[in-house]
Amino acid sequence: MADSSAGSERFLRGEAAMRRLTGGDPALSRAMAQADEVTPDLARFVVEFVFGELYSRTGLDPQRRHLVTLSCLISLGETEELRVHLGLALNTGLSPDEIVEAILHTAAYVGFPRAVAATRVAREVFIDKGIIGSGDQ
Amino acid sequence: MADSSAGSERFLRGEAAMRRLTGGDPALSRAMAQADEVTPDLARFVVEFVFGELYSRTGLDPQRRHLVTLSCLISLGETEELRVHLGLALNTGLSPDEIVEAILHTAAYVGFPRAVAATRVAREVFIDKGIIGSGDQ
Amino acid sequence: MADSSAGSERFLRGEAAMRRLTGGDPALSRAMAQADEVTPDLARFVVEFVFGELYSRTGLDPQRRHLVTLSCLISLGETEELRVHLGLALNTGLSPDEIVEAILHTAAYVGFPRAVAATRVAREVFIDKGIIGSGDQ
Amino acid sequence: MADSSAGSERFLRGEAAMRRLTGGDPALSRAMAQADEVTPDLARFVVEFVFGELYSRTGLDPQRRHLVTLSCLISLGETEELRVHLGLALNTGLSPDEIVEAILHTAAYVGFPRAVAATRVAREVFIDKGIIGSGDQ
Amino acid sequence: MADSSAGSERFLRGEAAMRRLTGGDPALSRAMAQADEVTPDLARFVVEFVFGELYSRTGLDPQRRHLVTLSCLISLGETEELRVHLGLALNTGLSPDEIVEAILHTAAYVGFPRAVAATRVAREVFIDKGIIGSGDQ
Amino acid sequence: MADSSAGSERFLRGEAAMRRLTGGDPALSRAMAQADEVTPDLARFVVEFVFGELYSRTGLDPQRRHLVTLSCLISLGETEELRVHLGLALNTGLSPDEIVEAILHTAAYVGFPRAVAATRVAREVFIDKGIIGSGDQ
Repeated sequence: MADSSAGSERFLRGEAAMRRLTGGDPALSRAMAQADEVTPDLARFVVEFVFGELYSRTGLDPQRRHLVTLSCLISLGETEELRVHLGLALNTGLSPDEIVEAILHTAAYVGFPRAVAATRVAREVFIDKGIIGSGDQ
Repeated sequence: MADSSAGSERFLRGEAAMRRLTGGDPALSRAMAQADEVTPDLARFVVEFVFGELYSRTGLDPQRRHLVTLSCLISLGETEELRVHLGLALNTGLSPDEIVEAILHTAAYVGFPRAVAATRVAREVFIDKGIIGSGDQ
Repeated sequence: MADSSAGSERFLRGEAAMRRLTGGDPALSRAMAQADEVTPDLARFVVEFVFGELYSRTGLDPQRRHLVTLSCLISLGETEELRVHLGLALNTGLSPDEIVEAILHTAAYVGFPRAVAATRVAREVFIDKGIIGSGDQ
Repeated sequence: MADSSAGSERFLRGEAAMRRLTGGDPALSRAMAQADEVTPDLARFVVEFVFGELYSRTGLDPQRRHLVTLSCLISLGETEELRVHLGLALNTGLSPDEIVEAILHTAAYVGFPRAVAATRVAREVFIDKGIIGSGDQ
Repeated sequence: MADSSAGSERFLRGEAAMRRLTGGDPALSRAMAQADEVTPDLARFVVEFVFGELYSRTGLDPQRRHLVTLSCLISLGETEELRVHLGLALNTGLSPDEIVEAILHTAAYVGFPRAVAATRVAREVFIDKGIIGSGDQ
Repeated sequence: MADSSAGSERFLRGEAAMRRLTGGDPALSRAMAQADEVTPDLARFVVEFVFGELYSRTGLDPQRRHLVTLSCLISLGETEELRVHLGLALNTGLSPDEIVEAILHTAAYVGFPRAVAATRVAREVFIDKGIIGSGDQ
């Protein structure tokens, strides 16, 4: 009943949610490991609060929840974090077409530059996962 | 086949999408009518491009599409537009619980102030629609 | 030649630029007077740096310079400041049509919600100045 | 040792931090009570995570921590939340002069409009608390 | 009168506007070609709506219109898109000095960091086009 | 008594403030030198206004002032400028732990992605300065 054991429980629930979403892809853990060198607490908050609380909730199915995540990241223009979450979004079963459709839709709300930047990142993720060919780049 | 008739076609498709989404609620048209006094073209672009193109696409079901809309508006902190789209989101069949869940989720990505501001607007919309009581406000 | 007299010179140049742009309209001075109660230095920086330095430069004609101002304020969603600067933009000789055209254009870059919000403010300013009728509001 | 009791512990710590910071001022609780009608979980996250975790940490003294809070809120342009936190910042012992100085400083980084908007809110809070006279408004 | 032919007309007008603005510079087409691999529709919307509608309008001369574009992109901090549009802005006949003057001016409204970041991009574009020497970098 | 000599005085004060803050580290001057090739006036405004006015004020001690700077830059997501100012913040005597604590705190207000991005930059700065080991990167 010490707070740390409680943290632990939340932490374990967060880790389980992360495992489910990343499906073994190390991109998120790698990003977190780097943050860990600077502050273990940021990584812990991400696991406990973001994954242990928010992603563990059941009021929104995982695909819908990830559409919210992607839309926020596109709005912010945070392309590095978007790259990681595009992979996670695919793991929830969102199709590449739905993801692209969501990106297109954001153009009306946050403008074309953010949507174009997101498409650029999606292209790299889709090439990386063999969803589209690498073209002549 | 003049461009204006083409505009017309897109415009009609946009109007149909708006009718479907607003379900007769005049809030959106009223906002558009005001913009119209200043520039009929902005209202036309909203009808033709935003509703006639984006909301008329089928690659994302209407509820998911509106989660993208809401997330962008919460990220921007555009509370007036959010108020209108919370009503439209309910019309797509998104439940108040799902909407609240989406708002909660944005706290991790765009911070608590935007999520709290969105909750304040959702509260007013939900009271307005009789979804929650008006409390002691 | 003490720094304060130098400030003075810049300050006088800033005041002259403000007078030119406001054309006697007290909206800007009133906003500044309120800030003054809290900190005279913010108002001084606005006069000395923003008006005494930037608006006193000649590398961009006053109308073009104000298009930059308006676009930044629309992008930020800062509607109160936008209201003041819409008045100043008209004073530079930018026509209401050019201003509306600029607002429309921003929709592509910062999204429709910011453009719609700016149109709402422009409508109020234009009614206030008798540029458009007050409609049935 | 069930998670809810752990939540409780964190929650109690968060409530203690809030009491310390608000010094009995009901503004924050009132805002939270409204959010509560829509979703008790947002208010709980604010208490548990924001106050129970972040504001309960000791690595940054309360005045410095609140300067970070104020700067973020000014940067976002979230004036309602800023109003509440200006009150809390005064309660940490930050002087009105230091707060004004911080607002002035943000002008260089997020531009004058955000700094002017923050000064407007600070003026209202300072009048409300009798720190400055209400002038002739 | 099928919608696609209408799209075509708008599309052709958009392509003409793009040709006029890019003056044969492939930077924009290259960016669009990459987006095309992910979604042909985003590129189509950019051509049809952004260039076929907005840039084809006559209410604001091309130089003034591009000042609006640049200001929005500086405000957003979207440096990649800014790089492309700095080239297009030069093609409209805006002088390097006017562009630099516009960037300077944004410092007051969106802060020095965005203005400094824009200056960094402008420097690269200007070196690339032989407008300034490449210094000792 | 000419304005330029006044500029000079301000300029010298600004240079002194910069020297104090950079402690000889050339990162800031290098960034400014590049801007100088494009426009000497931006660099001059940074020296005269940002350092000669704001950083030369005494109403907020240098460490507190730099917490405001860092928080604004984290909120904006301006990582290049943040990198420079993390170095300056250390020079004011802010400890790495306080800086990390401030970054953690921003997560609540501007969301985890900005805080994670800031942590990534802090990690690089801390490695560069030998504050933390370079790990296995």
